[in-house]
Amino acid sequence: MGIYEDNLKGVILALLSSGFIGASFIIKKKGLRRAAAAYGVRAGVGGYYYLLEPLWWFGMITMIVGEAANFIAYAFAPAVLVTPLGALSIIVSAILAHFILKEKLHHLGILGCVMCIAGSVIVVIHAPPEHPITSVLEIWSMATQPAFLVYVGSVIVWVFILVFHFSPRCGHTNVLVFTGICSLMGSLSVMSVKALGTSLKLTFEGKNQLIYPETWFFVLVVATCVITQMNYLNKALDTFNTTVVSPIYYVMFTTLTILASVIMFKDWDGQSGGAIVSEICGFIVVLSGTILLHVTKDFERSPSFRVSNSSPSSPTLSVRLCSGNGEFKFTEDAVSPSEAICLRRQELY
Amino acid sequence: MGIYEDNLKGVILALLSSGFIGASFIIKKKGLRRAAAAYGVRAGVGGYYYLLEPLWWFGMITMIVGEAANFIAYAFAPAVLVTPLGALSIIVSAILAHFILKEKLHHLGILGCVMCIAGSVIVVIHAPPEHPITSVLEIWSMATQPAFLVYVGSVIVWVFILVFHFSPRCGHTNVLVFTGICSLMGSLSVMSVKALGTSLKLTFEGKNQLIYPETWFFVLVVATCVITQMNYLNKALDTFNTTVVSPIYYVMFTTLTILASVIMFKDWDGQSGGAIVSEICGFIVVLSGTILLHVTKDFERSPSFRVSNSSPSSPTLSVRLCSGNGEFKFTEDAVSPSEAICLRRQELY
Repeated sequence: MGIYEDNLKGVILALLSSGFIGASFIIKKKGLRRAAAAYGVRAGVGGYYYLLEPLWWFGMITMIVGEAANFIAYAFAPAVLVTPLGALSIIVSAILAHFILKEKLHHLGILGCVMCIAGSVIVVIHAPPEHPITSVLEIWSMATQPAFLVYVGSVIVWVFILVFHFSPRCGHTNVLVFTGICSLMGSLSVMSVKALGTSLKLTFEGKNQLIYPETWFFVLVVATCVITQMNYLNKALDTFNTTVVSPIYYVMFTTLTILASVIMFKDWDGQSGGAIVSEICGFIVVLSGTILLHVTKDFERSPSFRVSNSSPSSPTLSVRLCSGNGEFKFTEDAVSPSEAICLRRQELY
Repeated sequence: MGIYEDNLKGVILALLSSGFIGASFIIKKKGLRRAAAAYGVRAGVGGYYYLLEPLWWFGMITMIVGEAANFIAYAFAPAVLVTPLGALSIIVSAILAHFILKEKLHHLGILGCVMCIAGSVIVVIHAPPEHPITSVLEIWSMATQPAFLVYVGSVIVWVFILVFHFSPRCGHTNVLVFTGICSLMGSLSVMSVKALGTSLKLTFEGKNQLIYPETWFFVLVVATCVITQMNYLNKALDTFNTTVVSPIYYVMFTTLTILASVIMFKDWDGQSGGAIVSEICGFIVVLSGTILLHVTKDFERSPSFRVSNSSPSSPTLSVRLCSGNGEFKFTEDAVSPSEAICLRRQELY
């Protein structure tokens, strides 16, 4: 128990990342509002004037910095530590929205924030140390161990079943189909992103990993998973309300990522039963806090946003990949920042 | 880390206690309903026919067993462990009310239950071992150590300020005055109850503690604190809505009790920083879960109960002491079981 040195770097990077990403949504929203006021055309109805607004670009840069920090965090600390801390960006955004955008935070939303923080502290305290890795070949051997191959195999089988059997039948009536595909692929994205991040970290330290085909294989996996995930997340959000999709996706994605990390990186080997149980409880608390924030955000959302958000399948909705942390940002101007945060949307189109 | 043997006994007793107390409210409520159906007079409007209803008496016995288990739990495990586990009775009651009384539990209430459980697990895992105590004189020396005397002194000063300065001025406008008095006295109640429980445990083990005047002094303290607490809790509930009083009282009472226990029994001596922080976070999570359960219980409370509960200062409201665990039960027929549980009310009048 206690925080290990490399984990500390990872935690600081993850916290910085959450701070930057959380703030970026507020800054961009403020930029969009300013652009709408100056030019009279909203991004949601096809305006691109926000591209002339420096504040919007400042928000954009803030987010890229945040995503970069998140990417690097995965190279230093286990995914069981970095992934749950991503929830803190929701808090940063909710609090900033309260003070800067004057979007009133519901009392239960505050309780959700407190829970996310308490849960994160518990996760951080009990997180296992990152195993020292000296070459991408080590990660390769972890990725090809029988247990993880079984996991990957199950994920692929499930994704195929969901895509070819359930998607045509009940993809548009059952929210679990599209979000399930995203979450399953997302867990593989994060694992390959972590492999890639570690390879790059080693390369920067002087141990060139780009000479190994394994590194390039991981690049391929990142690209494939991320495109699939992007595609189906877009479908999920085109079909269902964001308020329904967000918490389900967040819970499934984070849970599967942690499961994958525990299998692949053996994060829990050598940890006491108490520490593992504490981590799981801390994780459940973070999830509960996130769900609470999401659910209560509807309690006070202003009607003006609600109206302009009533057409989820509007042609302006689009999804773009922003960074390799296995999550996606896509854009729809007319959402509240806390809603935007949950899936890390962004105005990139 | 891990659970110590005496703590395990304490945890089992505390869990049994929560189970019995949680169930007792449902059983008694069922008894009251049956009595109302059979005799046509509700307890809330002055009927005493429920005393003829065996089910009500069975509920009564269930609660006494639960309170006894809670009392004994304090003799085995530290208050920082037993007190937060009391929140689980709320869960038991909420779940049983859902299934037996068909009082629908709100989705966020389920989330509150999950949080209470996760928080309790964290608290249990990190709770310190109970210091072995061989005589009431040892407890006496703990109670008379300078740090704890400072705490007791501050409590008494604050209680006097609240009773004589704030009560007449804003006792009926500020909910913190009466609940503050209850919580401050409550923390002393629990400490003296724990002293008394340990003395009785030692006496039953063959080391008679009743020969020491210190034991009788603790009896006196229990009685004084409990009467004061009872009096002001009744005032608080006569003046303010239960939904406002309950979570505030629960948070303040539990926090002060843990503070008192940490000072008097030095629960945190020899614990790692990580364990202490985990305990605090676990405790915050339990509190948050309890608040969530309380707040959301209003979201679906049936109007029929609401109406009959609209007169909080009705003459049938009375408070009676049930056990020495520093909490009180008092009675008002026309409340939902989850509401009744929060302050462990009971139909004793």
